[in-house]
Amino acid sequence: MDRSARGYPSAMTTTATDPSDADLRTVLRSHPGEHDVDLSALATAVELLGECVATCRACADACLDEEMVADLVACIRGDLTCADVCATTAAVLVRRPTDPGLVRSLVEACIAACGACATECERHAGMHEHCRACAEVCRRCERACRDLLAALG
Amino acid sequence: MDRSARGYPSAMTTTATDPSDADLRTVLRSHPGEHDVDLSALATAVELLGECVATCRACADACLDEEMVADLVACIRGDLTCADVCATTAAVLVRRPTDPGLVRSLVEACIAACGACATECERHAGMHEHCRACAEVCRRCERACRDLLAALG
Amino acid sequence: MDRSARGYPSAMTTTATDPSDADLRTVLRSHPGEHDVDLSALATAVELLGECVATCRACADACLDEEMVADLVACIRGDLTCADVCATTAAVLVRRPTDPGLVRSLVEACIAACGACATECERHAGMHEHCRACAEVCRRCERACRDLLAALG
Amino acid sequence: MDRSARGYPSAMTTTATDPSDADLRTVLRSHPGEHDVDLSALATAVELLGECVATCRACADACLDEEMVADLVACIRGDLTCADVCATTAAVLVRRPTDPGLVRSLVEACIAACGACATECERHAGMHEHCRACAEVCRRCERACRDLLAALG
Repeated sequence: MDRSARGYPSAMTTTATDPSDADLRTVLRSHPGEHDVDLSALATAVELLGECVATCRACADACLDEEMVADLVACIRGDLTCADVCATTAAVLVRRPTDPGLVRSLVEACIAACGACATECERHAGMHEHCRACAEVCRRCERACRDLLAALG
Repeated sequence: MDRSARGYPSAMTTTATDPSDADLRTVLRSHPGEHDVDLSALATAVELLGECVATCRACADACLDEEMVADLVACIRGDLTCADVCATTAAVLVRRPTDPGLVRSLVEACIAACGACATECERHAGMHEHCRACAEVCRRCERACRDLLAALG
Repeated sequence: MDRSARGYPSAMTTTATDPSDADLRTVLRSHPGEHDVDLSALATAVELLGECVATCRACADACLDEEMVADLVACIRGDLTCADVCATTAAVLVRRPTDPGLVRSLVEACIAACGACATECERHAGMHEHCRACAEVCRRCERACRDLLAALG
Repeated sequence: MDRSARGYPSAMTTTATDPSDADLRTVLRSHPGEHDVDLSALATAVELLGECVATCRACADACLDEEMVADLVACIRGDLTCADVCATTAAVLVRRPTDPGLVRSLVEACIAACGACATECERHAGMHEHCRACAEVCRRCERACRDLLAALG
């Protein structure tokens, strides 16, 4: 999958000229085990899940400092849950689990959590830049999860 | 801090031409709370901690599939511990905690865990590409944590 | 639900005579929000998920020190995945999320992960006491998750 | 260490008559690796860290539903950070790491996080039962961490 063609930003990729260009993809490629997953879709999903984890947690913290925090409670909860679900799904995915039911349940949980968090953040996107940005990151992650589900067959 | 000048790859940065360039840094910048941390050092540390988490977990899984797994036990343990410590430190850092003792303990724990994991992985770097890559990622993360400690004053 | 009647051990309950008997259940009971979940089934699930997290991680580490570690790779992976999935599900459950699809996906992921880990550990239960104990803890947790699914309606 | 003599409740211990009394302690005892830690202090710390994780997360969620949520922001942040730090420390401890500096940094981070969370919760203990209970759980966990530090020598 060509990520730039899918509208993903170049998150966590390293430049060719960098003195140290080793990264997650190097590790996934050199894994000795057999597997039949699309490594590129897997790596993209893991990278965007990781970005989503940090961004959602930062948005939750930003919401806590807003004067209107009482109006942002659903947003904070959505952020925290999205971060938790995405963090664990990334951890399980890099283990390339062979139980398709488990992977499917987790990736579907991510899609639900990202979608719910984005929808809630979008309600405040006009007032809070952090909610606008967080919603975008969640939507990117949701898209990568859907691509991964499709790649899983 | 200019990350490229410090030898960091452009991990998780988005390109200016990307249709959606919102990311963790957008959220950190739009946080309404007061703070006196260097946001760039903070964001770099959080990004590299996140990359380290996924890479260490992938390396642990790759080690488990090596024929010589019995010789890689210390590497697997170092990977898992490094991933856990980095994940939590990133989670706490985005909350920009005001207790300097807590932050210092956590960042020091990361430096210890990254250093130990890199040292162990480097012992197998000639035989296992995933260990070589993981060691590099851990060293980058360790460097970012040291920079953050310095920025914390 | 009467836990002892269901064959659960008295995990994480405190004795009446203890000078400090405040615990997770006290917090769940005093939560001001409305909810229609069975708090007892929820608390039992969260407690047993927490016990499963620690036990699976300890079993993975014990497996790494066995001479026959190469034969325990599937067990180690199952332990790590079960721990990750249970940890996140517990974190989300205490937030009493209102999205039934998300909760269902996560609890089903736990049931899959606990079942897979228990089945793998049971294969080694005769040789390794830690695998025997871990399998029992996973089965208890799996049962509590099924009870919670039933209580969710 | 006799836990009841130290005023710890019988958290996560199982009764002798229970049909299934296997638990975390069974796994820790049957670990084949050599070690010189006090297994009882270790197990008590891991159990109380686990209880602290769930309780702090539940308290954070309860705070979010209080009308005076704007006055509870420091409490919510303290809860979330305490939960994160305790969860990772428990994960690392069951691996019985041999790097004393890393363990010490993490256990000290727990003591700092538990103490800060308890102090903040105690300020609201008169108004919010969940804060009172959470403070007690944090203090128990803090005490177990101090005992573990002493046992580590």
